[in-house]
Amino acid sequence: MSSPLRVGIAGLGTVGASVIQLLRNQANALSSLTGRAIAVTAVCARHKSRDRGVDISAMKWFDDPIALAKSAEIDLFVELIGGDEGSARLAVEAALEAGKPVVTANKALLAKHGMSLAALAEDKRVALAFEASVAGGIPVVKTLREGLAGNSILRVYGILNGTCNYILSKMELEGLSFEECLAEAQRLGYAEADPTFDIGGFDTAHKLAILTSLAFGSAIDAEAIHIEGIQSITLADLRSADELGFRIKLLGVAQRTEKGIEQRVHPTMVPKSSPIAQVMGVLNAVTIDADAVKELTLVGPGAGGLATASAVVADIADIARGIRSAPFGRPVGELEVVERIPMQRHEGGYYIRLMVHDRPGAVAAIASRMAERGISLESIMQRRSLTPRGYSAPNGPVPVVLITYATTETSIREALENVVADGTIAEAPQLIRIERE
Amino acid sequence: MSSPLRVGIAGLGTVGASVIQLLRNQANALSSLTGRAIAVTAVCARHKSRDRGVDISAMKWFDDPIALAKSAEIDLFVELIGGDEGSARLAVEAALEAGKPVVTANKALLAKHGMSLAALAEDKRVALAFEASVAGGIPVVKTLREGLAGNSILRVYGILNGTCNYILSKMELEGLSFEECLAEAQRLGYAEADPTFDIGGFDTAHKLAILTSLAFGSAIDAEAIHIEGIQSITLADLRSADELGFRIKLLGVAQRTEKGIEQRVHPTMVPKSSPIAQVMGVLNAVTIDADAVKELTLVGPGAGGLATASAVVADIADIARGIRSAPFGRPVGELEVVERIPMQRHEGGYYIRLMVHDRPGAVAAIASRMAERGISLESIMQRRSLTPRGYSAPNGPVPVVLITYATTETSIREALENVVADGTIAEAPQLIRIERE
Repeated sequence: MSSPLRVGIAGLGTVGASVIQLLRNQANALSSLTGRAIAVTAVCARHKSRDRGVDISAMKWFDDPIALAKSAEIDLFVELIGGDEGSARLAVEAALEAGKPVVTANKALLAKHGMSLAALAEDKRVALAFEASVAGGIPVVKTLREGLAGNSILRVYGILNGTCNYILSKMELEGLSFEECLAEAQRLGYAEADPTFDIGGFDTAHKLAILTSLAFGSAIDAEAIHIEGIQSITLADLRSADELGFRIKLLGVAQRTEKGIEQRVHPTMVPKSSPIAQVMGVLNAVTIDADAVKELTLVGPGAGGLATASAVVADIADIARGIRSAPFGRPVGELEVVERIPMQRHEGGYYIRLMVHDRPGAVAAIASRMAERGISLESIMQRRSLTPRGYSAPNGPVPVVLITYATTETSIREALENVVADGTIAEAPQLIRIERE
Repeated sequence: MSSPLRVGIAGLGTVGASVIQLLRNQANALSSLTGRAIAVTAVCARHKSRDRGVDISAMKWFDDPIALAKSAEIDLFVELIGGDEGSARLAVEAALEAGKPVVTANKALLAKHGMSLAALAEDKRVALAFEASVAGGIPVVKTLREGLAGNSILRVYGILNGTCNYILSKMELEGLSFEECLAEAQRLGYAEADPTFDIGGFDTAHKLAILTSLAFGSAIDAEAIHIEGIQSITLADLRSADELGFRIKLLGVAQRTEKGIEQRVHPTMVPKSSPIAQVMGVLNAVTIDADAVKELTLVGPGAGGLATASAVVADIADIARGIRSAPFGRPVGELEVVERIPMQRHEGGYYIRLMVHDRPGAVAAIASRMAERGISLESIMQRRSLTPRGYSAPNGPVPVVLITYATTETSIREALENVVADGTIAEAPQLIRIERE
């Protein structure tokens, strides 16, 4: 058996403490699997004395993560500090510069600096592993990079933020408003005091940037992602979706087309029968469309100390076995720089909810605005009121829901601008894209 | 870049031809990933001249798989012959003996000889990889062995046979009988002319034996598996399941308990809300309960040339990258030999359907037989007739459905023996185990 692998961990929140715990629990199985012992020998965090539920007394303490990263006393550096700059970035760079493999859960860092960090890792011939950065405990990085190596990936999409899925699930199942569900998510610790990062879709976008690169062998291009959050989703939309056979999920979607790669994060109508529509609460899920396996869906915990630590430990075990891949599946120099497809060129079906002034001919006017842009309607629903806590007062505007066949974002936007200009509707249109299996 | 990896394939059915096709399609991506070219240089099959849709003219032809396996002209041997003895076994042994890594999709071979083959591979320090042997295109072997290395697995269960899932789904969705759906499966090529191997649960058992070993670090013990097929499932059972909030799936289940490991294959009632209940048609799915990730579910294609080839190619790519793990996650000598838990000691809830002679006191007699054995009933349903194509003639026996709380198989069996002896029922009892999330 080889010498033990000495692990240094920077950041001892719930994930860091859980990594220590799992490495201890699975010590025998891990040494059987990897052929060597794995020991956390050094740690670094902000407060030395905090009780973390794990005994760190035998580990060397560092106050400075960069000093830990460079230390000759560790063979592998685990970065659990977070943040896309500052000590997280400096420590990861320092470890790689010192020729030490790095395991990180830091999606923001990878979305911003993944290419330069991967290039540095390749240059130093060490691993940079980040299973925990996307979808927590779901081994989607390994699946895309290794498990589907024989496939050409056509599309990858998923529920990548448990907070948003919790809120949308609770709105749908309990008939509560977005604000009520957000408050409950905050109470339960699923959402931050400032929830923008989650509910605005930015967290999903970081993860999508990483998945896109792995799926398509393309350079990370986080700036190209079109991002919309879930703040505008109402109970009325969830009810209409239900009646039409859909659920609404915040998805990150990356799709290869003939023209390039589309990356987008937005609330999405998915058919109720699709595997991803079944995923409720804080769970995450990823569906991969590929030429050989057709459709593969992975469902599991997207966050939480133990689940995230599970992914960190899997990466540590791979490194202990001596495995070193190009972090994004191929050397950085071989990653494609692919044409961005702007959202205006997106093609798909749309759900449109309009609050229409109840005047003769209003719906006909809307329909002809759609027709002008060549948009075909699959269905049109108009009704006076949408039941308890619905939005339609007597004599007030009436909700009209349109479902379109595939069309372009530009056509939809132009048609809706004309509808707005006509003065037919009482508030801004609601627009939700439809994603079919 | 290293020298090309020369692959020899024995068996050129749809999977073998698809492997050749995928290796060609993904040649660039695979060489980026693995750092070397991968080329199929030699093949072997029964009929040289058959058109397989792929060009094999540049490959060396072997008539004898064992000669191919030993040939100095290949670096890796892919076994796609099938069967648990004969040339498949001899060729795999020959390749390993010659120090060549082996990739196989042969579940029957592994369920029977997995331990001796793994020991031989370890002895020769070469890989023996078998992702394709379980659940086709779903990377469950990699997930269990590598992706969940930080976890202690508590239970693994899945839909591992697409034929059975197709039949059960079609019965449920279209209200057709088992025989009608089997005939349709045969017509579509989902079931063999002799379907026993699939519908009797034996195929599922082979796959379960492999999953059990990977999940629990235990030696393969296929003989220990309790096996029941789906032949006895009727429309009446599917309807009762539906009313009670369940679906019926043929599951392979392996569960670690304090006493040992339970391995069983049988039709199972699963809550409709569980991810596995959503899986319809020929798809496969595996759910893994583990201490860190809690519940992880993978859904995808369990069979088909391209999907199975996808798994074979992933194994080839791992070997090309120089990865060699103990085939079952730890050296054969370190695999636990775990106590078998016989089915009699299984504990769980049960669905029991009895055709009861319509006499006063009959149901009371049954209920007291249950009570005698300490079995608590969660519900009891009696009705005259179960509508179209139902089974209850006027004045004939009446279906009575019992759902029990957790009890032991022994108690259930004893209680039912007494019910039979009482002469209360008109045909053999139907018994389906309930599996909760």
